[in-house]
Amino acid sequence: MELSDLDTPVLTADLDAVERNIARMQAYCDEHGLALRPHIKTHKLPELARLQLDAGACGITCQKLGEAEVMAEAGIDDILISFPLVGDTKAERLAALARRITVSVVGDSATVATGLSTVLARHGLEVAFLVECDTGNGRTGVQAPEDAAELASLVATLDGLRFAGLMTYPTLPESGPWLRAARELIERAGLTVEQISGGGTPTARRTHLVGEVTELRPGTYVYGDRACIANGSVPLEDCALRVIATVVSRPTSSRAILDAGSKTLTSDLAVGATGHGLLVEHPEAEVYKLNEEHGIVDVRRCARPPEVGDRVTVVPNHACTTANLHDEVVLHRGGEIVETLRTAARGLVR
Amino acid sequence: MELSDLDTPVLTADLDAVERNIARMQAYCDEHGLALRPHIKTHKLPELARLQLDAGACGITCQKLGEAEVMAEAGIDDILISFPLVGDTKAERLAALARRITVSVVGDSATVATGLSTVLARHGLEVAFLVECDTGNGRTGVQAPEDAAELASLVATLDGLRFAGLMTYPTLPESGPWLRAARELIERAGLTVEQISGGGTPTARRTHLVGEVTELRPGTYVYGDRACIANGSVPLEDCALRVIATVVSRPTSSRAILDAGSKTLTSDLAVGATGHGLLVEHPEAEVYKLNEEHGIVDVRRCARPPEVGDRVTVVPNHACTTANLHDEVVLHRGGEIVETLRTAARGLVR
Repeated sequence: MELSDLDTPVLTADLDAVERNIARMQAYCDEHGLALRPHIKTHKLPELARLQLDAGACGITCQKLGEAEVMAEAGIDDILISFPLVGDTKAERLAALARRITVSVVGDSATVATGLSTVLARHGLEVAFLVECDTGNGRTGVQAPEDAAELASLVATLDGLRFAGLMTYPTLPESGPWLRAARELIERAGLTVEQISGGGTPTARRTHLVGEVTELRPGTYVYGDRACIANGSVPLEDCALRVIATVVSRPTSSRAILDAGSKTLTSDLAVGATGHGLLVEHPEAEVYKLNEEHGIVDVRRCARPPEVGDRVTVVPNHACTTANLHDEVVLHRGGEIVETLRTAARGLVR
Repeated sequence: MELSDLDTPVLTADLDAVERNIARMQAYCDEHGLALRPHIKTHKLPELARLQLDAGACGITCQKLGEAEVMAEAGIDDILISFPLVGDTKAERLAALARRITVSVVGDSATVATGLSTVLARHGLEVAFLVECDTGNGRTGVQAPEDAAELASLVATLDGLRFAGLMTYPTLPESGPWLRAARELIERAGLTVEQISGGGTPTARRTHLVGEVTELRPGTYVYGDRACIANGSVPLEDCALRVIATVVSRPTSSRAILDAGSKTLTSDLAVGATGHGLLVEHPEAEVYKLNEEHGIVDVRRCARPPEVGDRVTVVPNHACTTANLHDEVVLHRGGEIVETLRTAARGLVR
């Protein structure tokens, strides 16, 4: 069966491109002696996590406990949860997970560390803890190397946790000096920094220039998207995740309406690109507006604008959030359908 | 059990507010002799559709066939599908639905009308067809009253379809004269315009000033959201749909990080409001950025900024897309949990 046999809109992933993307990132990490711990938030599929592990990944990264539970259930046994876990409910779930598999966590505050410590210690468990460092992104993370050292020293005193190293997102040029300063302060306090984990697809293959980082957590590289094309991290031909859509209306000579809107493509924008997705067959068209089910396209620059009933292939702006909208993704090779996978870790917000 | 017992992030709906919203819109329609056909794209729940019907709605509106199938399965027997159905696969599904319940459809082209006609006629079925009119929105819809009349005349000749009237979205002040002109042209051709369907929550309660419209299809009014607050259609106290989130990081004195990002709140913006949701307990805070799992909040103007572990209640920018992200919604009255509903028509893109 072919993709062309499927009704639209439908989410598809080119397995050949997925394999190329996995191989390329693994080769980069191997070349530079970096551990690769892919972030599965992009695909949310145990099956693709398995491909990444089989290619050489040391484990996987999840953003939410619910994702980690799905992956553990599928047999994956080494997971970093890269989002701070707050509250006893999550600490208990973490404890249950830590009984089954190797799991590590992150945090940027004494509150997070002591909260997890109390519950894990009560269960007689010990989990590796990475201090999250804000090395320039302005999101989560301790603000200065001195703060990292202080939290590391606290974690080292806490039952139930083992200080394992540092974590940052994304890995920026300025992350190197920051992380070096933190590592040196921590080592001066007599602790060992086993690992320093960096993240982000756009900067991934410049990590060896940054220094300090021992492990990479890219996610989007596996699928690619319009933002990746714009930032140069994945070329169009390797953008595996695509939505096939149909033109349902041509109300004017300048406008076409697709059956794919923000419920299918997300309303996420892509830095470095305008509009809401790239139409592969009509790159000169612009998806200038999305409603929930309508993609509104300016076709004035198209030599042969698509008509009602014509199908188009859309490379989404943001692969991760697009994958999260769909219960299923159709894997194919060259248009021939290989398998339809349920997005097992989709929509798990907790 | 109380909402405060639930782990976060969690999607909640205040059933008292839902009932007030349903009653208010029904009262408006009753007062002005308008049929009310709520759009269920907002809640995607057969249970709330039933509340709307019990309050006096004449039927419901769905955007996708999949939503209509779920609602029909739940016993709802009068559904308008307000999105053009293109292709034989959908026409066959429409035929199966039309055997079970009263269903009506829309379209703005001969291609859509003839495509449906062929399949429905083959099955010996007849479905009501409304001509979609672009009365100022610039999305789908025929562009001029003359085009509406032309398509109406074509539909009237097609087996399998019955020309039933006109449909537009949203209902704008200029929609009245447009629709009147179309109706008069169509009547002059000897056809009857049984119904004229208008849509949209922001303009809903000004419909009687527009004229011509006989039926309303608002959706968002049932939940309200930050856009509704900004456009005056639903006050804050009636915004039923809220996400409870937890502060997981306070990296600086000016910044708080929530465990609710674009995977929980969507990245949809709200016209007339800045940022990504209203924090009920901290209205002076601004959710200035969302990543997938992180809500990044400027707390500089807060008298008592929330700390790590504190919970906050977020009124989302856009209720419909937010509801679509969550497998479940927790119904409550005054914080006391009534029921947790599976979002049965969530994620149905086809």
